[in-house]
Amino acid sequence: MRILLVGAGGVGDAIAKIAARRTFFEHLVVTDYDVTRAERTVAAIATAHGADVSGRFSAASIDASDSDSVRDAVVEHGATHVMNAVEPKFVPAIFAGAIAAGADYLDMAMSLSERHPTEPYARTGVKLGDEQFDRATEWEQAGRLALVGMGVEPGLSDVFARYACDNLFDEVDELGTRDGANLVVRDQDGDEIFAPSFSIWTTIEECLNPPVIWEKDRGFFTTPPFSEPEVFDFPEGIGPVECVNVEHEEVLLMPRWCDARRVTFKYGLGDEFIGVLKTLNTLGLDSTAPLTVRSPDGPVRVSPRDVVAAALPDPATIGPVMTGKTCAGLLVTGTKDGRPRRVYLYHVSDNEWTMANYGTQCVVWQTALGPVIALELLAKGIWSGTGVLGPEAFPSEPFLELMQADESHGGYGQPWGLREDEIG
Amino acid sequence: MRILLVGAGGVGDAIAKIAARRTFFEHLVVTDYDVTRAERTVAAIATAHGADVSGRFSAASIDASDSDSVRDAVVEHGATHVMNAVEPKFVPAIFAGAIAAGADYLDMAMSLSERHPTEPYARTGVKLGDEQFDRATEWEQAGRLALVGMGVEPGLSDVFARYACDNLFDEVDELGTRDGANLVVRDQDGDEIFAPSFSIWTTIEECLNPPVIWEKDRGFFTTPPFSEPEVFDFPEGIGPVECVNVEHEEVLLMPRWCDARRVTFKYGLGDEFIGVLKTLNTLGLDSTAPLTVRSPDGPVRVSPRDVVAAALPDPATIGPVMTGKTCAGLLVTGTKDGRPRRVYLYHVSDNEWTMANYGTQCVVWQTALGPVIALELLAKGIWSGTGVLGPEAFPSEPFLELMQADESHGGYGQPWGLREDEIG
Repeated sequence: MRILLVGAGGVGDAIAKIAARRTFFEHLVVTDYDVTRAERTVAAIATAHGADVSGRFSAASIDASDSDSVRDAVVEHGATHVMNAVEPKFVPAIFAGAIAAGADYLDMAMSLSERHPTEPYARTGVKLGDEQFDRATEWEQAGRLALVGMGVEPGLSDVFARYACDNLFDEVDELGTRDGANLVVRDQDGDEIFAPSFSIWTTIEECLNPPVIWEKDRGFFTTPPFSEPEVFDFPEGIGPVECVNVEHEEVLLMPRWCDARRVTFKYGLGDEFIGVLKTLNTLGLDSTAPLTVRSPDGPVRVSPRDVVAAALPDPATIGPVMTGKTCAGLLVTGTKDGRPRRVYLYHVSDNEWTMANYGTQCVVWQTALGPVIALELLAKGIWSGTGVLGPEAFPSEPFLELMQADESHGGYGQPWGLREDEIG
Repeated sequence: MRILLVGAGGVGDAIAKIAARRTFFEHLVVTDYDVTRAERTVAAIATAHGADVSGRFSAASIDASDSDSVRDAVVEHGATHVMNAVEPKFVPAIFAGAIAAGADYLDMAMSLSERHPTEPYARTGVKLGDEQFDRATEWEQAGRLALVGMGVEPGLSDVFARYACDNLFDEVDELGTRDGANLVVRDQDGDEIFAPSFSIWTTIEECLNPPVIWEKDRGFFTTPPFSEPEVFDFPEGIGPVECVNVEHEEVLLMPRWCDARRVTFKYGLGDEFIGVLKTLNTLGLDSTAPLTVRSPDGPVRVSPRDVVAAALPDPATIGPVMTGKTCAGLLVTGTKDGRPRRVYLYHVSDNEWTMANYGTQCVVWQTALGPVIALELLAKGIWSGTGVLGPEAFPSEPFLELMQADESHGGYGQPWGLREDEIG
């Protein structure tokens, strides 16, 4: 396996660093629009592991917005697999570039949605991933695999869905991804500051788009943003966090391979963050359309959302001043042996641990873990397939075993949890 | 009296339009950095009142940031009075230009404060108006008058303070300005939208600066923003609105001429607006320091506060789509004839009325009323003085009588209210 990693931002950098401890691949080319970022990742691997390991890595530049640039890079480096680690707006170009060059493809977020033109908060328009699934036949006929939504959420959450349907339930009522954290960022004086751990640009996109829900009797439908608030109790000391519906890939993926009555995604944004996003929307500061604004250099054109992003700390830099844990998981309700059951399957990532072991903050690190495990399963032939497939199209047990096993036993040393909730 | 009006923004335009119905002055020159704005105001007066009236008005350009430009304009137009109607950051230049040319001066907001370098939320640094009062001797010696803070708040509120101390109380406990409104702005579809009726730039400045309070035993001190929240019941159907301490000129002016134990200013921002301001502060979007931001034209430098202002509707344009009333007033508590008393003195401005009668939205119109009345009292010699004086340095009765009297009896036809609250 020769991997072309597209993007050396936070997640791309972490993928390379996690992969550096594994031997399943022959070579990994770290690419970025800014080649110095790719070189920095490779240099960090050389420092941490020496030349023997870093010799399996190289750096190159790429234009992720141009499918020809992606195709040419695949050919030049003899890549067998393209690992997409950039913003989802680049999905179509990278997806097209991979198949044009005859490579397999993985991503962690699917092609973007477009809201329904007249009833955005009731009906879906173009759904997340539609552009990719519309080309499934092309991938099948080429004998190539596109494994889409293979991060942590989507990704690990979808693996949990497969596991729950196969092993824990006879009938599933709801597959409900629930994501929450107790992360806190402090300034030099130790005062808590507002600093999202993930790109505010992407978070605004996700959270202000109409959330999508799937129901067996009704199909896909949407609601207004922040709908169905619910306080969910997260494990390992995180505790209760206010969660709301958010548009997310799991809702589009799980119904294709798992039998459930309802599929949802709720994000534990918390009161404060929900308030911030609502205010940005009320003031039009979430907008990507450029405004004309006075400046010291005369009138300039900027998009308010870019200004919001520029005003906040860079999520890539907050790792050292952040404390707490983030939890990705799936709440499953249904019946087993005729009795109602409610289970939460989860993985917790502790910022102190990821910083100490990888120099990477925990949200980014947790996102990067799943793709490396999936690549290893594909490299070993444990997972295989053609067409456009989600994580739940593959057997879950090998993934969860490899993730959980100690490093001394060839695993990734990342235990996952199963909480059996009492039915009230 | 020949008046040089500096600024043809919302308030300056309204001052000229109110003055157009009065005969106390010989000539009024409307000036602005952008002379076309001044010309528009004069043209509107010509349309409404004909050439006989508009012949007493002319338009000219001015640079309000340059005291020489102000001095030269005073000399050129033979102005006896300079009426400052621009942003408070221009106060020092206009104030200096007026005395340099030997003219009297009026404004509606005083020179800006600077927070205490180490204890901003406990102690005052440079206070509002300090720069002006520090030069009081210079004005006295020149025999010239600077009447500062003569809008509605400060302005009418200070007139009310004088009136209450002279006529309604033996001993005053608190002079508490309370400002509130029930204004609503709707979009084309009739949906309520977020659109402040006053410059968001100035509102952020006022509301996020440390509020100042005066107490007889303690002197001036400050608190954190949004302190001492209180639901105040406003009259004439406006009803209860959440008010918080805000830095405002009344607190600096009233203790100089009125005897009270405590002086405060609370602004009825309401829950939503307080939340918006807190969020802007949390995200650093209130900042005036330029940030480097990506744009369609490459990286540009803009201040986040300017972007927030650009993203919101222009307050000057929302008059036609706004409904409701705004109330400016003063809550006075104390004793009269040995019994406790609580009185609210107020003036209400209805947007429907100001739009129909002046084509001006009510908040701006209400601000413009006081300066014209004060100019008329000065022109007639009913008010006179030298030095730097606040509205409460002058007898309140002639002001309130002229404001209240019908237009057919030579007044402004603007009744004010006195609500006697029961002591619980």
